[in-house]
Amino acid sequence: MSTAEETAGGEEMPWGEVTPDAARRLLVAAVDAFAERGYHATTTRDIAGRAGMSPAALYIHYRTKEELLHRISRIGHDKALAILEAAADAPGTAAERLAGAVRSFVRWHAERHTTARVVQYELDALGPEHRAEIVALRRRTDAAVRRIIGDGVAAGEFDVPDVSGTTLAVLSLCIDVARWFNAQGSRTPDEVGALYADLVLRMVSAQK
Amino acid sequence: MSTAEETAGGEEMPWGEVTPDAARRLLVAAVDAFAERGYHATTTRDIAGRAGMSPAALYIHYRTKEELLHRISRIGHDKALAILEAAADAPGTAAERLAGAVRSFVRWHAERHTTARVVQYELDALGPEHRAEIVALRRRTDAAVRRIIGDGVAAGEFDVPDVSGTTLAVLSLCIDVARWFNAQGSRTPDEVGALYADLVLRMVSAQK
Repeated sequence: MSTAEETAGGEEMPWGEVTPDAARRLLVAAVDAFAERGYHATTTRDIAGRAGMSPAALYIHYRTKEELLHRISRIGHDKALAILEAAADAPGTAAERLAGAVRSFVRWHAERHTTARVVQYELDALGPEHRAEIVALRRRTDAAVRRIIGDGVAAGEFDVPDVSGTTLAVLSLCIDVARWFNAQGSRTPDEVGALYADLVLRMVSAQK
Repeated sequence: MSTAEETAGGEEMPWGEVTPDAARRLLVAAVDAFAERGYHATTTRDIAGRAGMSPAALYIHYRTKEELLHRISRIGHDKALAILEAAADAPGTAAERLAGAVRSFVRWHAERHTTARVVQYELDALGPEHRAEIVALRRRTDAAVRRIIGDGVAAGEFDVPDVSGTTLAVLSLCIDVARWFNAQGSRTPDEVGALYADLVLRMVSAQK
């Protein structure tokens, strides 16, 4: 179900960073299984079966089901952080950087909505060490957006009474695209990105 | 885990509409189990056990696990619709009605975040008829918010180029509170409601 959607976005091959090919196929199978049935209802046997492999072959690449979830979550969070830090570091006014951040973050959540749902909804299933690692990545993601908004306030471009609350709301709005986005729906990922960039500039009262 | 949180909000007893008491206890146990392990990983035996009852006692009140999920989803969606229709029908300017809608919808998602997560994330697990019924309720929820925004545009109070996209974004922002809200966090449900009402009035460029 999700594999076709995930690829439809274009850009780069999803999970292209995972090698060898068998490890990549198992990861894609795990994303689909977790999205469809939930982490706890999925067995490593289910995942191996979806990938057309034996359970023994799975254990060559991943010791546990939690290791698969951690790998998915880590790659997803690394990508989210890279998108937002690139936007924060980009040239231009704070409004241009914030609009760019929202457009690319929304596009990622729309195009990769199956992965994003697993990444967002199964955080509690990670073991304590892995969870702490992911929480640290999320803090840095948050800091990238806060930096853009803070720059805009400092430059007199934005009027924002509560920078940390507004940062939280901006990220939340973009993340929730993964919940409602439907590839068969009436809006493309780019259209949602453009709509949301405009709404977020309004949230910070960006000067026109 | 969730039962204490759910009650902390005050107002009325959660699930007070469910009688007799055994049926209510089973529903509360199902919400907790679905939230913790996911719908597919939960058995009716797990639910009965959490409620301190036998599986046979569960079947007196609910024929299937799906019937429990439907009951939870139906009550949650009825409540969401009642909140938003009350705000849409309230007296006052469109800005006052929109702020009221956001404040109460956010408060509900913050106070009842465990229930809201189950209601939002397990939609796909409903059978086709139940799903169609819930989708119809969601359309009405959407229509209530769209009506307020449309009234504001017609009255010249709001400036909104894309009413349906903005309606979608407002609802999405409020719903996602259920994902990130933490009862031990630094913001109370009322504080999040006030912050979000301000952000949403900015999204529609409400005149001050």
